[in-house]
Amino acid sequence: MALRLHAQVNPASLQAAEFDAARWQRWVAEGAGAGVIATHSADPSDLDAALAETEVLFLVGSAPLHDLPRRAPRLRWVSSSSAGVEWLLKAGLPPAVTLTNASGTHIPKAAEYSLAAVLMLNNFIPAMVTAQRAHRWAPRSGGTVAGKRVLILGMGALGGAAADALAAQGMVVLGNSRSGRPHPSVMEMSRGDGFRSQLPRADFLIIALPLTPDTHGLIDRAALDLLPPQAGVVNIGRGEILDADALAAKLRDGTLGGAVLDALPQEPLPADSPLWDTPNLIITPHCGLYDPTAYAERCLRAFFANLSRFRAGEALHQVVCLDRGY
Amino acid sequence: MALRLHAQVNPASLQAAEFDAARWQRWVAEGAGAGVIATHSADPSDLDAALAETEVLFLVGSAPLHDLPRRAPRLRWVSSSSAGVEWLLKAGLPPAVTLTNASGTHIPKAAEYSLAAVLMLNNFIPAMVTAQRAHRWAPRSGGTVAGKRVLILGMGALGGAAADALAAQGMVVLGNSRSGRPHPSVMEMSRGDGFRSQLPRADFLIIALPLTPDTHGLIDRAALDLLPPQAGVVNIGRGEILDADALAAKLRDGTLGGAVLDALPQEPLPADSPLWDTPNLIITPHCGLYDPTAYAERCLRAFFANLSRFRAGEALHQVVCLDRGY
Repeated sequence: MALRLHAQVNPASLQAAEFDAARWQRWVAEGAGAGVIATHSADPSDLDAALAETEVLFLVGSAPLHDLPRRAPRLRWVSSSSAGVEWLLKAGLPPAVTLTNASGTHIPKAAEYSLAAVLMLNNFIPAMVTAQRAHRWAPRSGGTVAGKRVLILGMGALGGAAADALAAQGMVVLGNSRSGRPHPSVMEMSRGDGFRSQLPRADFLIIALPLTPDTHGLIDRAALDLLPPQAGVVNIGRGEILDADALAAKLRDGTLGGAVLDALPQEPLPADSPLWDTPNLIITPHCGLYDPTAYAERCLRAFFANLSRFRAGEALHQVVCLDRGY
Repeated sequence: MALRLHAQVNPASLQAAEFDAARWQRWVAEGAGAGVIATHSADPSDLDAALAETEVLFLVGSAPLHDLPRRAPRLRWVSSSSAGVEWLLKAGLPPAVTLTNASGTHIPKAAEYSLAAVLMLNNFIPAMVTAQRAHRWAPRSGGTVAGKRVLILGMGALGGAAADALAAQGMVVLGNSRSGRPHPSVMEMSRGDGFRSQLPRADFLIIALPLTPDTHGLIDRAALDLLPPQAGVVNIGRGEILDADALAAKLRDGTLGGAVLDALPQEPLPADSPLWDTPNLIITPHCGLYDPTAYAERCLRAFFANLSRFRAGEALHQVVCLDRGY
């Protein structure tokens, strides 16, 4: 019996255009092997019919996946083209369904974005942009990043990419993860709550954590208050990890140097959010880590390699641990 | 007879605080040797009395140096703590006076600023800052800089530093200088007007030229029109080299992608300049290349090394060619 494979693309996703039917069918032709019936839709109203048949679901962007045992009785594997899958876990996957994500697909762009964000903070770009709005000539200069300390929370694929890029500039990289496992670009790793003793030494903080019940609201006012008053903050994880109101208050009263946020508490950020006008804050609308010239190909290459493993009964790569949430 | 040495610090200079009397006297004590009478002033009204006696003048920032043959009859050497000395040349140095500058002192910070500026342009930060002012969620993503082309005009110390930093990110560096001399980080060098055939291939343009009669107004509307419509422009040279009005017009009509300017047509830029509100333009107020934590020490080390050569009758380093203007 043929294996039923379906790609469901959310047309609102930033990635939607790159995961078009032509690219999907090319990969199916080249990478799926014989005995596969593969479908593709960017129309949300096709989802229910597809779920009724499909065994392997490839998702681009989010989709309403409630009540899966009833709606998708044959489903065995869901593959998401995103690294963060907290919304999918919230939908409640049946225990027999394997979930894989796109962990690692972002690496080159995440490295570049992290480097850009830290260099911007080190060169007071958020403050200069704020002064520019006021037509104010306000020069500020400082030393290079070499020898300064950056603390990276979350040492998965994104955090590791940031660590490599920043260590290459001569920075002292401090890291934190649940396991505390060493990383070649990190001079000092902490585990769990140990990051609190690293915050006071951080010239820059990069949040590269997945969103889980443990990380939700983790970087609150108390954590931010542990940073030195001129520190810079970068969020490439999820908006819900950082208390953006507390961050904004500290930027307004000058007890933080600046911030660059790619992950926001609400996305899209509503037009009336006070974050837009917060001084010394640069917002990139959750697009900084995405490389449209390479992402879809990398992602599909990994998925079809996984599909070969799946059909051979081998263990999949990029499997999300449902307990950990990443 | 003792050698008369005077440091004149313009208190309006960004560097003034770092070139204080205590640092100067420490370097004099350590580096000047015997038989030197060294003075220091940050008061412009001391200049005339100092000029009347001094043989070696160390300048921080600009000073009124007209009519030097009459006012400074013993003057033999002027050392400027800046890289750009066009204002000094305009004052008309007597032919017997040697001029040295601080070429090379900016290198590490110039490398970092150039990298930051190109990464900002590659990641659409100027456009996102413009959208942020309008409270507009407008994601834009692109590939990494690796493999993209940057054209550097001026391959002196600043241009060379930029070339090294950008080549290290995998960029293809094109260069242009008067001589066309090869540089290890530059894949294709042009000389003189040859940069015009490189402009259409440049994803990014960095202006790192000195201001001379040849470079004044060099990057005008016609030159900018040779760039691809999504190119980004960086100016770390002098404002007068680039037609900022033409740049702003192209940024407004979308025929250039973005710009980051550290050198402006007027400095400080007047509050009513339309440049402040130009879309997709980030202004850093002529402070991006200055590293207050290292600059003064590097600069004074080079000056006192030159002073030893001067007293030994040897050729000085960092000599400005009065004909070339740099």
